[in-house]
Amino acid sequence: MSELNMDIDENIVTLEQVLEAHQFLKSSPDMVRTPTLLHVQSMFTKDVKGPKSSGLSSKVDATSLHKVDLFMKMENMQTTGSFKIRGVLNQMRKVKERHGKQCKLITMSAGNYGKAFAHCVGKSSPGSACVMPQTAPAHKAKLIENMGVEVHKVDTSKLMEEVNRLVKEEGFVFCHPFDDIDLIAGYASSALEVLEDVRNPDVILVCCGGGGLVSGVAAAVSLSKVSNCRVYAVEPQTAPTMYESFKTRRPVTIPHAKSVAAGLAPPYAGSLCYKHCRWFVEDVLLVSDEEMLSAMRVLFDRGIKAEPSGCAAFAALLSGKVPDVEGKKVVVYITGGNVSCSELSDIMQDGR
Amino acid sequence: MSELNMDIDENIVTLEQVLEAHQFLKSSPDMVRTPTLLHVQSMFTKDVKGPKSSGLSSKVDATSLHKVDLFMKMENMQTTGSFKIRGVLNQMRKVKERHGKQCKLITMSAGNYGKAFAHCVGKSSPGSACVMPQTAPAHKAKLIENMGVEVHKVDTSKLMEEVNRLVKEEGFVFCHPFDDIDLIAGYASSALEVLEDVRNPDVILVCCGGGGLVSGVAAAVSLSKVSNCRVYAVEPQTAPTMYESFKTRRPVTIPHAKSVAAGLAPPYAGSLCYKHCRWFVEDVLLVSDEEMLSAMRVLFDRGIKAEPSGCAAFAALLSGKVPDVEGKKVVVYITGGNVSCSELSDIMQDGR
Repeated sequence: MSELNMDIDENIVTLEQVLEAHQFLKSSPDMVRTPTLLHVQSMFTKDVKGPKSSGLSSKVDATSLHKVDLFMKMENMQTTGSFKIRGVLNQMRKVKERHGKQCKLITMSAGNYGKAFAHCVGKSSPGSACVMPQTAPAHKAKLIENMGVEVHKVDTSKLMEEVNRLVKEEGFVFCHPFDDIDLIAGYASSALEVLEDVRNPDVILVCCGGGGLVSGVAAAVSLSKVSNCRVYAVEPQTAPTMYESFKTRRPVTIPHAKSVAAGLAPPYAGSLCYKHCRWFVEDVLLVSDEEMLSAMRVLFDRGIKAEPSGCAAFAALLSGKVPDVEGKKVVVYITGGNVSCSELSDIMQDGR
Repeated sequence: MSELNMDIDENIVTLEQVLEAHQFLKSSPDMVRTPTLLHVQSMFTKDVKGPKSSGLSSKVDATSLHKVDLFMKMENMQTTGSFKIRGVLNQMRKVKERHGKQCKLITMSAGNYGKAFAHCVGKSSPGSACVMPQTAPAHKAKLIENMGVEVHKVDTSKLMEEVNRLVKEEGFVFCHPFDDIDLIAGYASSALEVLEDVRNPDVILVCCGGGGLVSGVAAAVSLSKVSNCRVYAVEPQTAPTMYESFKTRRPVTIPHAKSVAAGLAPPYAGSLCYKHCRWFVEDVLLVSDEEMLSAMRVLFDRGIKAEPSGCAAFAALLSGKVPDVEGKKVVVYITGGNVSCSELSDIMQDGR
């Protein structure tokens, strides 16, 4: 990791930043301390009969699960339906410390970050904006507009260009949707909760899109001096930006990254996130769209609503892709639950 | 309660029966120890903005929730999607001890009990049967048939008659879907788990249809000598069989009981359940269909899939119907999650 040594001090989140974000978020009226399900491996290894059950016998390999002590961090139960609010609250606070409370903010997103951004900004910064790809579903744009944020729709390839134009011409302050140290510090707070609930975890599995969450989690675990805990990033195999970045040892761009887990398919790995992942993350694992959808069905059959992006980490475990889990304490992040009934119907297929 | 004194010893479940059922169920490959969510009141008091959120501000009263230490027992995460399997496994074991392993079993149900019955019986007792009302949805009958149980459809008013005929003419052994001491002992096992997870709870809220679950929970808590813990039964106000039974001091029949929570609307309170409730339950609370659906929406927005029947206890808390909860440890049972995507779509209305 010699390419990182040079600037470790100035670009990697510190324990102090993580603890300070955690303290701030604990008292926020907009975020909740989400529950961790404890020792729940049997929920997924004891089978259910009948055509309505996905069971595990048919689609996923439960062999390894039998021997795992399984914990689930339920960020799908977070306000705004995903972990994003943790980072955004901390990011907004810092932006306003730097640019004043009245600054107009701008970001680009079509997903959960946009929703969390609108939740924070709609309240306190009128006139803020979100640049969205033309292809974003109309109902998502409407949701963000209804929360008080102006929406600009542009071609996917012109997102950054439009943001830059608005920053330059209209004085917006740009908030990056994943590559931001204050986001990473905010996301890290979830790992401090995990460490309160699970003593000495051996493995933590976190989904990875831009890489903000897994950066924060892995940094928090490492900086808290938890020994021998491996944190894995899990990516869609059709949008393997972090995986390829690990291989080529620099953050890569994959313009046509695409997955059923849209939230995990940005076209590039953030350079800051890449640096954190290289420093703190054990490895990057890949899952297929079908593996994520299977995991989603398994969760739904057990009363848990998660979106495809939110199931990536669990999919990696179910499909036997995580090395050396036998007899280990494994924490799986379920990161989001923003899925509509009609999307659910399509995915469940058999009328569940 | 003088009317009960006479035969308390022979008809009320004993601590020994409860502990024995718990021991048996712990080692069953068909049941799981469901998780309890700890201290999760903030999940429902911290609001979410936007039209997609039910929030709490609009539809339910969260004032009392702020001051509650909230725990949730997640029986919607149980195998077969509801708590029923706990009772049925214990009931089947006892029936087979009495009638031999080869006996043919029969029950009547259109809901979660039928599903749990079929799960157990389809495996081990070929030729068993379930009498269902003509009005039961075709897909539920098919589910039960696909699990290996023969379905007989009759007029709702003829259910018991048909069961009696089959018992007499074809030698079936009848398994009552709620008024059965071995069911009650099995259901009680869930309360022993709650007592492991929550030290000295003050209030436990349990939905009540026939009354089997709340009987078991209240008995387990009382027999375990937990002091000052109030267990409430929560019923639909349009199917108030236990409520009216409490008022008239004998188990009553309400032939046209009906509710969006179909599982909580049998036409009568079981006499055995009534006796347990009178003995161990603090009081019966009533909730409206709309209160249950609101509670269901609130849970769904937080990533939890529950069916209307499964939300009754939470609805009582959200609508401020539970006395003296300020500063108290309150355990809410979420009892089932068997709801299809199309039912969800209808209930969520706004395309969530």
